[in-house]
Amino acid sequence: MLKPGERIDDLQCKGLRIIQDPKRFCFGVDAVFLANFVRAKAGSRVLDLGTGTGIIPILLTAKTEAAQFVGLEIQPESAEMAQRSVALNGLEQKIQILPGDIQKAAELFLAASFDIVTSNPPYMPYQKGLENKYEPKNIARHECFCTLEDVIRAAAYTLKPGGSFFLIHKPFRLAEIITLLVQYKLEPKRLRLIHPYAEKEPNLVMLEAVRGGGSWLTVEPPLIMYREKGVYTEEMERMYRR
Amino acid sequence: MLKPGERIDDLQCKGLRIIQDPKRFCFGVDAVFLANFVRAKAGSRVLDLGTGTGIIPILLTAKTEAAQFVGLEIQPESAEMAQRSVALNGLEQKIQILPGDIQKAAELFLAASFDIVTSNPPYMPYQKGLENKYEPKNIARHECFCTLEDVIRAAAYTLKPGGSFFLIHKPFRLAEIITLLVQYKLEPKRLRLIHPYAEKEPNLVMLEAVRGGGSWLTVEPPLIMYREKGVYTEEMERMYRR
Repeated sequence: MLKPGERIDDLQCKGLRIIQDPKRFCFGVDAVFLANFVRAKAGSRVLDLGTGTGIIPILLTAKTEAAQFVGLEIQPESAEMAQRSVALNGLEQKIQILPGDIQKAAELFLAASFDIVTSNPPYMPYQKGLENKYEPKNIARHECFCTLEDVIRAAAYTLKPGGSFFLIHKPFRLAEIITLLVQYKLEPKRLRLIHPYAEKEPNLVMLEAVRGGGSWLTVEPPLIMYREKGVYTEEMERMYRR
Repeated sequence: MLKPGERIDDLQCKGLRIIQDPKRFCFGVDAVFLANFVRAKAGSRVLDLGTGTGIIPILLTAKTEAAQFVGLEIQPESAEMAQRSVALNGLEQKIQILPGDIQKAAELFLAASFDIVTSNPPYMPYQKGLENKYEPKNIARHECFCTLEDVIRAAAYTLKPGGSFFLIHKPFRLAEIITLLVQYKLEPKRLRLIHPYAEKEPNLVMLEAVRGGGSWLTVEPPLIMYREKGVYTEEMERMYRR
């Protein structure tokens, strides 16, 4: 089941496990935050854009009552590894991993065919000087193969009217994110900032946007990671125990 | 100097005072927050859109080294009262109060003639059922005479390229605010949320947007008002002592 360099990690969540290769890319706390931010009704169909290791659909099988998950991943080796993680957890009936390109979502999926779309996309704009464009870590972190607009366009295309798009990203791009969401008729409805400490700047932001929703945004209380150095807040403790 | 019903309040800031009429409208903590959020270079020309009592330009004479201030106010009685507050503080050489309509900014001002524009506009969209549309309190709180877009259009018109617009508003309208700012080429550069308590939702948001600025937003640490019930945080204590 494992290839050279791979390892199995325990997700500390209802016995779930995941295969990762540290030389390629390991999921971050971001994916865990997003999985905890998602609200999905029982029976929902969920699409994860740029699923990487498959971490988000795997966690969402435990954290929501959604029925079916599709994870789209452009790197064939990552998609194949994610599919093995799905099998490792016996989730083949719930999660389907597709190798494919977010930019081609309109060829891969029917319009308005999902209730929920999630994404933990690359945060950094592609820079011409970037070396090793085809390195898995760079593909996951930089917009080598898809831009923020590609992700938002794909979400808007695949979501049913009234369906929700859940995104985690960097606060420095918040104006761009909101502008693009509104442009694609995905109305921002919930926003939550994640701060390392209560008195520090946020380093992540999560948004829920509803396709065709009305204009009213709820900014939620901040999510604070550490009470003091090395000591998680209660919310963080809870998040890792669910 | 005072008309019936008016009183003089001490601003607790370098001896500044202001005339208010509680039957009409008294400035709120919002104006104080915004005055503390503004950064203005020495010699700047500043325009305050919807100045009301004149509180923002009056505070900014103490908190910045800006040279000249214009306060635009649609209610003639408020404008006249604000002008008396300017005189009360001996600031006639620095602050000019103009009675006039934000919607007519392009007739009242030259394009690109200010370094800084500030506004603490009405927060609530105009609703058809609103009684007493001409009540001063309603004019200050509801978009009876100008919408958010009117304010942003006026700011974009009057600001020099590279000049900053400082706005305080309600978080529930944040998506609309950011979308309009970007539409009018006022790029959001700084955002700060104001929370009554550290673990509560924010109830106000402040933005600095730069005319023609590049796309990079700094979300600042949250501004927390109370440490516990009735006890201000240190930052609030400092704000009221400067």
